[in-house]
Amino acid sequence: MRVVQKYGGSSLKNMEYIDAVAKRVHQTAEAGHAVVVVVSAMGDTTDELVDRAQQVDGLKTARNLDFLLATGEMQSAALMAMALTRHGTRAFALMGGQAGIRTDSQFGQARITGVDAEALERLLAQGVTPVVTGFQGISPDGAVTTLGRGGSDLTAIALASAIQADSCEIYSDVPGVFTADPRIVPNAKALASLSYDEMLELASQGAQVLQTQAVLYARQSGVTVNARSTFEEGPGTRIETEQAEFNTLVTAVALDTHLTKIGLVGVPDRPGVAALACEKLAQAGINIDLVFQALSHDDARADIALTVADRDRDRAVRICQQTLGELGGSALVVDADIAKVSAVGAGVRNHVGVAATLFRALADAHINIQMIGTSEIKISCIVARSDAERALNQVHHAFRLDGKD
Amino acid sequence: MRVVQKYGGSSLKNMEYIDAVAKRVHQTAEAGHAVVVVVSAMGDTTDELVDRAQQVDGLKTARNLDFLLATGEMQSAALMAMALTRHGTRAFALMGGQAGIRTDSQFGQARITGVDAEALERLLAQGVTPVVTGFQGISPDGAVTTLGRGGSDLTAIALASAIQADSCEIYSDVPGVFTADPRIVPNAKALASLSYDEMLELASQGAQVLQTQAVLYARQSGVTVNARSTFEEGPGTRIETEQAEFNTLVTAVALDTHLTKIGLVGVPDRPGVAALACEKLAQAGINIDLVFQALSHDDARADIALTVADRDRDRAVRICQQTLGELGGSALVVDADIAKVSAVGAGVRNHVGVAATLFRALADAHINIQMIGTSEIKISCIVARSDAERALNQVHHAFRLDGKD
Repeated sequence: MRVVQKYGGSSLKNMEYIDAVAKRVHQTAEAGHAVVVVVSAMGDTTDELVDRAQQVDGLKTARNLDFLLATGEMQSAALMAMALTRHGTRAFALMGGQAGIRTDSQFGQARITGVDAEALERLLAQGVTPVVTGFQGISPDGAVTTLGRGGSDLTAIALASAIQADSCEIYSDVPGVFTADPRIVPNAKALASLSYDEMLELASQGAQVLQTQAVLYARQSGVTVNARSTFEEGPGTRIETEQAEFNTLVTAVALDTHLTKIGLVGVPDRPGVAALACEKLAQAGINIDLVFQALSHDDARADIALTVADRDRDRAVRICQQTLGELGGSALVVDADIAKVSAVGAGVRNHVGVAATLFRALADAHINIQMIGTSEIKISCIVARSDAERALNQVHHAFRLDGKD
Repeated sequence: MRVVQKYGGSSLKNMEYIDAVAKRVHQTAEAGHAVVVVVSAMGDTTDELVDRAQQVDGLKTARNLDFLLATGEMQSAALMAMALTRHGTRAFALMGGQAGIRTDSQFGQARITGVDAEALERLLAQGVTPVVTGFQGISPDGAVTTLGRGGSDLTAIALASAIQADSCEIYSDVPGVFTADPRIVPNAKALASLSYDEMLELASQGAQVLQTQAVLYARQSGVTVNARSTFEEGPGTRIETEQAEFNTLVTAVALDTHLTKIGLVGVPDRPGVAALACEKLAQAGINIDLVFQALSHDDARADIALTVADRDRDRAVRICQQTLGELGGSALVVDADIAKVSAVGAGVRNHVGVAATLFRALADAHINIQMIGTSEIKISCIVARSDAERALNQVHHAFRLDGKD
């Protein structure tokens, strides 16, 4: 079997952790599997390097920043290769570019343009275990590029696709994808499997197990991903092509508390008004999560509500203030005390009852729904921040994700 | 003008130092010069990385160790390029291999096999200042190699030769090469210039300004090196092809206190005995500095004395003990309380009076000479360790290096 194993920073906090991971990889290699290891930087290394760069020039030179950040993964790859060699598995550390990951020249957020598996194939044929730095590649003119934060998952999946690995295992400090965040919903359960699309919705709803770009690449290349814990045995969660038996109503629920609601009150009720507000935000690179338009008490006027990520709040408010002025609206309302509860599942599209079950569960718990958004496989509700954890538990229970009636 | 400037770790201790160096480079670039910068790792970074590797596998995997150590120079190169860019000089960080330094595959002590100036020429033509990681290159199969500790000087000189630079400036925390170590000889003076050969003798006698391999490369390629201080203005010392006016008797004096004398007492006085002892040490990779054979009191017997570096002492003693047994000698004497005083100068070869002046100076100071060694441009004497500093001052004065009669 060919296996790609990716270990994140929380699995590589210090030398003891590196040694424990090396032992695990060594056992896989000893069992006769050909292993390619992908590593992130140790613990907080990347943040420390970003801090140093910030001191020097405020992060303005993306090319040199990529060159700097690459050293974090290089150090963990070298130490991992040494630890593996000591355990008896011959291993070489490789930079992303040396492992064949070619990208465009968008420093800081480079896109993979191709993967040349030749170097990895040559090492595997020699019985050497390649240890590849995650999150980086090489530009057409030979410069070091990075794929953006969290891009080590993408490296692992791209390499798994290129060498036609039987399995791509993404190790972190959680044992897989859960029906809900177990810190909030104590009886959440680990899922055996879910589809790429479900994982995408969950990733964008705040589940941190896999990075969105990585899931997209896996879906496109058909790589089955296995999310597992570095610290526990257990099968983990398979992320794969949608299976017939996936047609359960709802697979998991998610909570996002990093959202702000902005309301434009009393704007003219004519076609295109909401579109105008959205366009101006889009031009500034701000993603709108949900948008909702309602008639105001005054018949000729309407209210528009939209949600943006907290990190975009200040810029979004400025833009909306300006839009409100241009439209002649009456007031801007900003509310950061909100949360979004989402139910995700391949069954959502075929079962009209899902929305009803969700609304009933919240109504029964006297939780007010402020806004609603839907996609093919997801329904989301905006609720008050103070109701968030209770809402998530209610919905989790209503869809019987805890296995109780 | 084309200039290569190399800055060592002591010039790059922290962010403030990096910024000060960047300012200096920026001024050179502003003055219209094309600059290539070569940097070492910041302060103690390399030692810290070696410590970490030692924890993992005791430094056994040279290839992975080189990959790890390369990150030290990469970090300082990236931060330097950022600082330069902030000052207004556009700069890119480059790994040794990206800058065209090709080596063999002797990880940890790779030799430069060629330099491809294309990447540097392309950047210089675009008005970009390349900041190159010192002490590293790329092997024929694309792996990161290091040139060995101190190899950043070699990187600078090799690049200066490849781009036909007008000047190769090696910056450190001392303002050049002195007539003697100023910490021992207070009235030592900085030299305006000296020859490659003189620098080689001084480097091997413990002067730390330039690494031996780097001087050899400079001599072979004819690059004039300028050793200067990062922290003071001043012309520094030129290291260049021997000039006619160099024929002063002695250019500088040097002291080496890291030597051990080993005496094999009472070995048979027959041809080849000293050679046998030397051969066995050479086979073990131990360098013999001086060797001396004298008749013993017993006419059929001789004494052999030789000096080795302190770091080789234990192994050398073991080998000499064995040799002594094979030869049927009577005793082994080990003396670590010695020092070597050397007078170096292109004039040594032409002036018979140099040796006499040296011996007279030591005799006048009642300093006993234990052994003598000579080369084309150097005379060395072994003295007691307790006499070392006094001997150096005496000899420095005897050759009028302090400018006094």
